[in-house]
Amino acid sequence: MLEIPPGVYYKSIAPCICPIVNYCSHCGEKVVFRVPEGDNLPRHLCDACGTIHYLNPRLVIGTLPEWEDRILLCRRAIEPRRGFWTLPAGFMELGETAEQAAIRETLEEANARVELTGLFTLLSVPHVDQVHLFYRARLLDLNFSAGAESLEVALFREAEIPWEDISFRTVSTTLKHYLTDRGSGEFVFRAGELKAQG
Amino acid sequence: MLEIPPGVYYKSIAPCICPIVNYCSHCGEKVVFRVPEGDNLPRHLCDACGTIHYLNPRLVIGTLPEWEDRILLCRRAIEPRRGFWTLPAGFMELGETAEQAAIRETLEEANARVELTGLFTLLSVPHVDQVHLFYRARLLDLNFSAGAESLEVALFREAEIPWEDISFRTVSTTLKHYLTDRGSGEFVFRAGELKAQG
Repeated sequence: MLEIPPGVYYKSIAPCICPIVNYCSHCGEKVVFRVPEGDNLPRHLCDACGTIHYLNPRLVIGTLPEWEDRILLCRRAIEPRRGFWTLPAGFMELGETAEQAAIRETLEEANARVELTGLFTLLSVPHVDQVHLFYRARLLDLNFSAGAESLEVALFREAEIPWEDISFRTVSTTLKHYLTDRGSGEFVFRAGELKAQG
Repeated sequence: MLEIPPGVYYKSIAPCICPIVNYCSHCGEKVVFRVPEGDNLPRHLCDACGTIHYLNPRLVIGTLPEWEDRILLCRRAIEPRRGFWTLPAGFMELGETAEQAAIRETLEEANARVELTGLFTLLSVPHVDQVHLFYRARLLDLNFSAGAESLEVALFREAEIPWEDISFRTVSTTLKHYLTDRGSGEFVFRAGELKAQG
């Protein structure tokens, strides 16, 4: 990160993930892309009003809701990966804590009430500029149902998990760590990185 | 978070933290602030090109570098809190992992090489839309020095820590947890929230 030469377009500012920054969101003038004084990475700068537009990775936060020997999964009603199964998770919003984001996403996607029992995985996904956090959570009742972003919500025993139809690798990684730890009787926080495939 | 009515300006979009979004960074037209279809929070929308400008919390990542019974701290050369002592930390950049961010920030602020030994704290700071992560780290050598954003860098024993001159509460919280755990002989990951003061 330290050695990116000035003016080189930084690879991970991908149009599909980060907004294309052509104009200053503050004053509307065109921005330039160069290394600001005292910095070591190129940024989108507005020479008209002086604003520096920083782009940073985003947090995706979710839960692994447990009910006895079963795990709650949601089948996605939206792209990307519509029709695939996921743990309830989504982008952290302004003004909330990481724990509030986890509980809110579980409520929104599965109409499910949970009590968090600890951070379980922290997985960096640098090629899409995201960090995914999953909390273990205790499902408080069985009155769950599909939220607006889900086609269906269901509980799965280990042998029933639809491994071929899991939406994202951070979800399958979290599920595998969970099942390993449940088998051994001790849950251990895991950090890791998922690299681009292919 | 679910019940914010359409059109209500969301409190934590603070000009000092998040950019003021008046114009579309994609096409340069004026944006409006309303709840998009299928969403439940107001966003900055461009009716000209259709772009939705999401704002999300940012990750600040750093280390607690250990050398025998001492901890490395940096005295800040930049605002905010110029002249105050901090653990090396800064905003996570695009294209890196959380662990790479921790190591890079330690190198940039203290010219210090570390080996991470585990995530130690995750502290949400919702009033400034940040999540702070600190890793325990082993300092690999004593060839550290002040980086561009530091006035000086030094090692502190417990009794020497300048508690009155610590830059941020996430830093003092992390230091206190560390010293408690070092005293008890067992380091335990901590999550928490720092609320606005006053």
